[in-house]
Amino acid sequence: MNVLKKLSKTLLILISIALLFSCKNENETAKAGNRSVSGAKPKYVFMFIGDGMSHVQANVARVFLGNNTKGEVEISELSFTSFPVNGIATTQDSTSFCPDSASTATSFSCGVKTHSGVIGKLVDKTKDAKNLSEYFKEQGWKVGIVSTVTLNHATPAAYYAHVANRGEYYNIGLQLANSGFDYFAGGAIYSPTDKNKDKKDIYDILREKGYTVTKTQEEFNALTKNSGKIYAESPILQDSGSMPYAIDTPEGSLRLADFVKKGIEVLENDKGFFFMVESGKIDWACHANDAMTVIQEVLDFDESINIAVEFAKKHPKETLIIVTGDHETGGLTIGQATTGYDTAFQLLENQKMSFVEFDNKLSALRKANPNLTFEQVMQEITANFGLLPPSANTKDNPLALTQSEYKKLQTAFAESKLSAEEQKKRLSEDADIYRLYGGYDPVSVSVTHNLNNKAGIGWTSYSHTGTPVAVHAYGAGAEIFGGSYDNTDVFFKTLEITGITP
Amino acid sequence: MNVLKKLSKTLLILISIALLFSCKNENETAKAGNRSVSGAKPKYVFMFIGDGMSHVQANVARVFLGNNTKGEVEISELSFTSFPVNGIATTQDSTSFCPDSASTATSFSCGVKTHSGVIGKLVDKTKDAKNLSEYFKEQGWKVGIVSTVTLNHATPAAYYAHVANRGEYYNIGLQLANSGFDYFAGGAIYSPTDKNKDKKDIYDILREKGYTVTKTQEEFNALTKNSGKIYAESPILQDSGSMPYAIDTPEGSLRLADFVKKGIEVLENDKGFFFMVESGKIDWACHANDAMTVIQEVLDFDESINIAVEFAKKHPKETLIIVTGDHETGGLTIGQATTGYDTAFQLLENQKMSFVEFDNKLSALRKANPNLTFEQVMQEITANFGLLPPSANTKDNPLALTQSEYKKLQTAFAESKLSAEEQKKRLSEDADIYRLYGGYDPVSVSVTHNLNNKAGIGWTSYSHTGTPVAVHAYGAGAEIFGGSYDNTDVFFKTLEITGITP
Repeated sequence: MNVLKKLSKTLLILISIALLFSCKNENETAKAGNRSVSGAKPKYVFMFIGDGMSHVQANVARVFLGNNTKGEVEISELSFTSFPVNGIATTQDSTSFCPDSASTATSFSCGVKTHSGVIGKLVDKTKDAKNLSEYFKEQGWKVGIVSTVTLNHATPAAYYAHVANRGEYYNIGLQLANSGFDYFAGGAIYSPTDKNKDKKDIYDILREKGYTVTKTQEEFNALTKNSGKIYAESPILQDSGSMPYAIDTPEGSLRLADFVKKGIEVLENDKGFFFMVESGKIDWACHANDAMTVIQEVLDFDESINIAVEFAKKHPKETLIIVTGDHETGGLTIGQATTGYDTAFQLLENQKMSFVEFDNKLSALRKANPNLTFEQVMQEITANFGLLPPSANTKDNPLALTQSEYKKLQTAFAESKLSAEEQKKRLSEDADIYRLYGGYDPVSVSVTHNLNNKAGIGWTSYSHTGTPVAVHAYGAGAEIFGGSYDNTDVFFKTLEITGITP
Repeated sequence: MNVLKKLSKTLLILISIALLFSCKNENETAKAGNRSVSGAKPKYVFMFIGDGMSHVQANVARVFLGNNTKGEVEISELSFTSFPVNGIATTQDSTSFCPDSASTATSFSCGVKTHSGVIGKLVDKTKDAKNLSEYFKEQGWKVGIVSTVTLNHATPAAYYAHVANRGEYYNIGLQLANSGFDYFAGGAIYSPTDKNKDKKDIYDILREKGYTVTKTQEEFNALTKNSGKIYAESPILQDSGSMPYAIDTPEGSLRLADFVKKGIEVLENDKGFFFMVESGKIDWACHANDAMTVIQEVLDFDESINIAVEFAKKHPKETLIIVTGDHETGGLTIGQATTGYDTAFQLLENQKMSFVEFDNKLSALRKANPNLTFEQVMQEITANFGLLPPSANTKDNPLALTQSEYKKLQTAFAESKLSAEEQKKRLSEDADIYRLYGGYDPVSVSVTHNLNNKAGIGWTSYSHTGTPVAVHAYGAGAEIFGGSYDNTDVFFKTLEITGITP
């Protein structure tokens, strides 16, 4: 029976692929050499970027869903992991095998290798590289750009801006306002009046340029095809003006999927659209080594991708969906030294909030009570992460800390009481301290490390890594995204399949 | 210019894919639904399994080659990373998200999920699951099985044996001798007279069954198509009867590529052949967290794959090559906490031998001199790995240990002087000790950890992880290996493409 089931599944996949690659005759196939084997020329192109997402980030979400909802050793599908085509893209930039989001997004958007920190410029840091949005706009397409982080952050910026330094937030914001692109949504504009808060507010400039700017859910709901150019900001903002983590988002609040849905509604037109959607905080949670928050971000991202898949089903011959990551972050693995071949992802269910919200909670507690004790903090840890202090009663509880783990948590609490300056000094002088805390709140990061270890999840870094990323493709022209290639090839393939000569 | 170069590269890839998928007419395409879009039906099928090899193991080798031979931030290609088709396969078995080689090889060879430790049997551990070699043998094909580890180890065994426990080495050896398969080569038979050394020698049984058994390079060189059934053992054996690590193999000695070349020579026939080749020690070196040895194993594996590619070029319409891994081992990453966004793979060039040979060297030194000092060991470390003790002179040398690293190495040396029993006890009782040494020689593993960290390489585990693996495919029917699927689908796809109904 199992064999039959498997076989029919294989058959189904084969038929799907056959349909995908079906071609009229030999001559047409040969002609298609410079475009696509199926002759497809999509006019609705989605580019979904999971920042910091490689194969493992997707797989932890699949293991979490399979393990925790099916209660056995089984993994669940995500929308994009069931796409018919997969590629593998290498991510190194001109200066590092562990590249940053500015250079990697520039490779995707402009097809060039450049320095870490550079957006939309060649490796000389001077000449502009033309990006996909600009190519598509020239064709009369509409352009949408959505991100869960601020819209002048590196990844979204690579689709409209050209700066030598990703830190030029105000300059990037100006370029956003001047882009003429049709739909921006998600996080806020970071530093909208510049560092010294003395420049003209980007939001004012946006309005002058004809953008409808929304900041409430009511205003957002009222947006239609007739609203003109749009900047739709999340009504709730979290760290650095980003959308809140999915795990922290109150029920009924706007999520990434809502911004994608609205985007499709306002962008759809006969000529076509290009729609870049970034889930930017997968990366941030990976930097902090917070696995449960990563998982919820990936699932939230997947929900937004599903909106595009629904659209593609209505326009199968005209829609292409690409889902990829710009680089891996954190060196995440399913499995780690002390749990060996075991995992226990169900333990992650005990986590109630992201490390950011727990940081906020700890700050508030410290402010309210300068004599806050470790025991009081431990109670908060138990309430929000399930971890228990070691005792005779908790001996066989998988959430109980060992004496050694408990002692290290006490050390982390002591570390967290040092001045910010002192902590910074110790981090820079002692590699062992950095390895433990990586510049994060010593208590929060120790808590997620402990919970992750017990669940069977490991991390090697607080930075990006050189792991290749998956490119998942679906729809018209998807087939050219198979195989192994460089991240710059994603740009060239996208132009090719849409019939544009760079 | 850069744009033009990229474009022509993209064009080349597109044309290759178009040729790969070229189909005669619509009817034929539709008919091909149950087989392959190209109508291909290969009769020479290669299955290369890199044990413990996921995307990262391949990429560390590519970064090493690119960085160390080109001297800049550039990666090199391997034969299989330039294959036109990529799939992603999930690896969990019926009992673990971090599965073992017995169950995962059984998924590849028999298309079933089973328990870790089980070979060629269903999840009930009783009923046999028919394997690919058996299917192909029924078609009149020849079957070849090569591994760098012992031939009765889990992965090769899954292609001819059916046992409830991978530890039944003698039983597996008997099944090898009774398989009637045509070509076995690589490592030795492990435990050929069983645990108590009281059973009939498997090598004698092999000879009785008509196998030509070779153990020297001269005998190996003399093997031809007329030698009948063959068991060709590596003239040099290392740990547990395996072939030596590539890094330890003397120039001019037989390597994996030689065993593949000979295999093709003796297996080639008009009906067809199935040839499984395992590089089993990528896994072993990953268990031990020895990155340079992993890299050399991957490059050696790639050399053997190139032999198959050369053959495929001569028989393009009849040859299919699949290259994959059974699971990831070690939680390997390019990048780790304390080096952040930097890597320095050139430092790995200082490593002269595998951890196994260094273990052997340390053992010999300890035996020769019971009063061996840490300073004497440090001299050996410097000579064989380049690492230097901290001093005023070595301050800016990237190979110099910090005071903290040096102190930890001294602790490891003290640990290594404890009795084996005492070390085992401490490993099982103290998670921190296990995390440091993982059951390996405390000095050797600390040395590779230090060198890896300085090179910018991290590890999370001494076990397997739940990272998905890449499936690279080339040649006739390769296209059906694109997309995301389960490792059991590799079995079903292989049967499908060769026109066999299970």
